[in-house]
Amino acid sequence: MKPPIGRDTQLCMSLAGRPGHFGSRFHNHLYEALGLDYVYKAFTTRDLPAAIGGIRALGIRGCAISMPFKEAVIPLLDGLEASARAIDSVNTIVNDGGRLTGYNTDYVAVRGLIERARLAPDTPFLLRGSGGMAKAVAAAFRDAGLRAGTIIARNEAAGAALARTYGYRWQAELPDAPVPLLVNVTPLGMTGADQDVLAFPEPLIAACDIAFDVVALPIQTPFLERARALGKRLISGGEVAMLQALEQFILYTGVTPTEAQAQAAAAFARG
Amino acid sequence: MKPPIGRDTQLCMSLAGRPGHFGSRFHNHLYEALGLDYVYKAFTTRDLPAAIGGIRALGIRGCAISMPFKEAVIPLLDGLEASARAIDSVNTIVNDGGRLTGYNTDYVAVRGLIERARLAPDTPFLLRGSGGMAKAVAAAFRDAGLRAGTIIARNEAAGAALARTYGYRWQAELPDAPVPLLVNVTPLGMTGADQDVLAFPEPLIAACDIAFDVVALPIQTPFLERARALGKRLISGGEVAMLQALEQFILYTGVTPTEAQAQAAAAFARG
Repeated sequence: MKPPIGRDTQLCMSLAGRPGHFGSRFHNHLYEALGLDYVYKAFTTRDLPAAIGGIRALGIRGCAISMPFKEAVIPLLDGLEASARAIDSVNTIVNDGGRLTGYNTDYVAVRGLIERARLAPDTPFLLRGSGGMAKAVAAAFRDAGLRAGTIIARNEAAGAALARTYGYRWQAELPDAPVPLLVNVTPLGMTGADQDVLAFPEPLIAACDIAFDVVALPIQTPFLERARALGKRLISGGEVAMLQALEQFILYTGVTPTEAQAQAAAAFARG
Repeated sequence: MKPPIGRDTQLCMSLAGRPGHFGSRFHNHLYEALGLDYVYKAFTTRDLPAAIGGIRALGIRGCAISMPFKEAVIPLLDGLEASARAIDSVNTIVNDGGRLTGYNTDYVAVRGLIERARLAPDTPFLLRGSGGMAKAVAAAFRDAGLRAGTIIARNEAAGAALARTYGYRWQAELPDAPVPLLVNVTPLGMTGADQDVLAFPEPLIAACDIAFDVVALPIQTPFLERARALGKRLISGGEVAMLQALEQFILYTGVTPTEAQAQAAAAFARG
């Protein structure tokens, strides 16, 4: 049983331009299941420096950082851990007695999923996208030893820079030739304007071995649905979202839930 | 049923040098009972300006202010409501879209209790104490129309200044002659070093009509116990604590609990 909220309860939180429900539900569900004296609450802000100053001054234990704050927050922190330094992007702050350290658990989650998939270092892959999350994914692939990647991005400045930074090729348009691993890091297929759009054309999906979609909402994008119907191996944005939140949970509390507990919390958080 | 904590949940909080449990338990119990999407958490800080900046930047709805921050917080706010202006002391902040207004619900609570007691304006009373809370109590007595007060305080500078401000007499030592209303606003009788000390000597208690103790912890001080045994009318610090917290609750949520709901929350908070 979780104790009632009192003076010793630790607060964890998130800062996002548009706060979602996933984090609050995931973390609070695990606090309850594990009987931890913590509470989690999502926030937005129009004054990032004052919000981060408040985290320090109030002893708020941890904070998830989402768009559009992932880079702007860096100069407000006291240090970056390797995962955030690898991509100059912070999605997690840990507060140790007033010292704020930035982490990137998206990077950690993607790297864990790549390693779990046991891909050969020369597996060719297409990574579609060039935003902040694409940076985390490209860095994780590079650091996991995968060398044969191509960044697909219409935006030449962003796409070519991303490719150069992580040692990949860049091209604006999708190729026709088959590629074993397709990775979507664009909003294509995400709830909203692009929810019915396939992130990769049907022939490329049919010819791939593994379909990896970073989009987590909905849990089943058109890209993953098509790949599933064709019997492909799948890596979903839901797994990324769950693993990165789990990594945050461990950083904040020092407690590692079981796989079943983490899955139950993620299912609750999506529901 | 209270909804699970999510992005729309409102946070209320407290800032104190030594946070207690009463506020967290009182407010969270009422949120639960009334199905309000709020959560309450106690904090301390070593950086008051950054903490108040964080309240503004994070949209934290309300904040109780305790010792030693009640006066230091004033220049950090955007305005003072009459209850705080009356005594230049803030125990409550309400955040309306980034505009922070200071209130003093201790003053409001004491004034409500005096009015409920229907005292004649010329009722003589002794008010023992000269700290921040003594100011709230003296102002409430003055504004309720009670004119025949004597401030009892060893510290001449503080005691005489308090008496002068609110139009009362001051003396360092307790009188021998009986006085109908005795008011303790010192820590005498409070859990800790002075918990066994009677705030007024036995003969004065025996000769009074009403014993008013602002100490809330324990709920039964030696002063109130003695007065109760002698069949006196009592006004307790527990009532002050409950009424001031209830006033905060109404300011933060706009919802007025029933008397029974507020009493149940206070009983839970003390337990």
